[in-house]
Amino acid sequence: MYILGGTSATLLSNNLSRLLNQPLLKTTFKRFPDDEFYLRIEEPIDGEDVLIVQTAYPDPKIVELLIMQDAVCEAGAKKISVILPYFGYSRQDKKFEEGEAISARAMAEHISIHADEVITVDPHKEHILDFFTTPTRSCSAVPALADYLKKKNIDLVLAPDKGARDRGEEAAKLIGCASDYLEKTRIDGTTVKIHPKNLDVHGKTVAIVDDIISTGGTMANSIKELRHQGAKKVYVACTHGLFAGQAREKLKESGVDEIIATDTIESEFSKVSVASCLASMLVSLA
Amino acid sequence: MYILGGTSATLLSNNLSRLLNQPLLKTTFKRFPDDEFYLRIEEPIDGEDVLIVQTAYPDPKIVELLIMQDAVCEAGAKKISVILPYFGYSRQDKKFEEGEAISARAMAEHISIHADEVITVDPHKEHILDFFTTPTRSCSAVPALADYLKKKNIDLVLAPDKGARDRGEEAAKLIGCASDYLEKTRIDGTTVKIHPKNLDVHGKTVAIVDDIISTGGTMANSIKELRHQGAKKVYVACTHGLFAGQAREKLKESGVDEIIATDTIESEFSKVSVASCLASMLVSLA
Repeated sequence: MYILGGTSATLLSNNLSRLLNQPLLKTTFKRFPDDEFYLRIEEPIDGEDVLIVQTAYPDPKIVELLIMQDAVCEAGAKKISVILPYFGYSRQDKKFEEGEAISARAMAEHISIHADEVITVDPHKEHILDFFTTPTRSCSAVPALADYLKKKNIDLVLAPDKGARDRGEEAAKLIGCASDYLEKTRIDGTTVKIHPKNLDVHGKTVAIVDDIISTGGTMANSIKELRHQGAKKVYVACTHGLFAGQAREKLKESGVDEIIATDTIESEFSKVSVASCLASMLVSLA
Repeated sequence: MYILGGTSATLLSNNLSRLLNQPLLKTTFKRFPDDEFYLRIEEPIDGEDVLIVQTAYPDPKIVELLIMQDAVCEAGAKKISVILPYFGYSRQDKKFEEGEAISARAMAEHISIHADEVITVDPHKEHILDFFTTPTRSCSAVPALADYLKKKNIDLVLAPDKGARDRGEEAAKLIGCASDYLEKTRIDGTTVKIHPKNLDVHGKTVAIVDDIISTGGTMANSIKELRHQGAKKVYVACTHGLFAGQAREKLKESGVDEIIATDTIESEFSKVSVASCLASMLVSLA
């Protein structure tokens, strides 16, 4: 098997190559002066299995993925597996209003065309896997995040809301600590207090575990509140760190002790790799 | 019929709506804070024919197109026609080397999925139309460019090279002037002289007519040479004005009298609309 690491998954493809003991495919990537993407596969892959690794976010990386799939198909690969560490547009997974696109479905449909299987990590909603017209599975980054958090003497894992409770409980169980979720209480017409549903954070080291950090606004407010309520340390761990807009500044100002993200989206916070969870799944599927 | 004008074809969709006397579809477009595209169609189009107009360049505009097609399909349109005023990646139309993607084919394949017909303007090579898996036609912007140039008392139309001769001849015939093409002659080991194959430009008003201006390098050199050879005025007219990188500066410094492009790619040089050629084709197909 060859691993074709796209430009949005360099770290992860290297990690996967090492873990699976499979070579990275030699490639040339460039952008033409008019900003169009160019790809050349530098080795013969006729009859070979190829694992394409590319985060489909933002838009130009989706186009790169479609072009990589074309090149691998054209070069005669036997089986094309696509790893979408982060699947862009996955939150536009239904029509919230009439006339909207179901963008997650649209992207899934196009990515499925030249893919024999797709594997993604922590989709925001499980049902988006059904949008793909090729066999699609997901794996969880929670064990990898929990592994990292274990070293931090976490007393309490907090899910950012009730809907994300299962995820928080899974992390807490792996770390060996308590878990709870954050709730918003309206204390007058305009003020909202964010606090753990059942437990007290005073003097505790807490970790908020979420699937995605986008603009970081709600997360920053939660951190401030927990600090205000006497939390000793506040860690924030997520699978997909988008850090859109002013997210970095907001989080920095909130008084967070450390931000941890995985390598599904590469950033200075990619301290945890999802390579091991992906490798386990690939080995189990083989 | 409704016309859905995308964000990369605002001018052209308005022109088409006026010429065809068909309404523009009411829509909301936005980008989320994480830069993902959002579209909502604000009117019912169930059972209606919809004409989507969107230049598929650069990458984010391709993704927008795929999402618009999904929304129109989801909303129950009867027939989906896609106008690609400029088709991005169309110059990557074959494998120049082993291992490359045929990107034009890849994009054509994806755009074809939710399209009952596709119409594009002046493709760089005609054979790219065969990459689409839905009926696809092209129309020529040369009559529209010639119409504009007629007012400029052009003595001579020049094609930028021998391969583009037909296009130059077509323009010259419509303008009612002579035509020739530019040739490069190597005068010593390194120096190349660019000059018209047969005719002299001294004291003449010339127009170089090309399908596409990308970085503008060759075009700028040609203009300088024609100036040097005594051309009175040099006009440059193209269908697709990409003006990538430093193209604007290079052309400005070359001594060009005027740059003319169409609205397939919107810029300050979009002085000619391809709406009339598209409208004629649509009426003839109806």
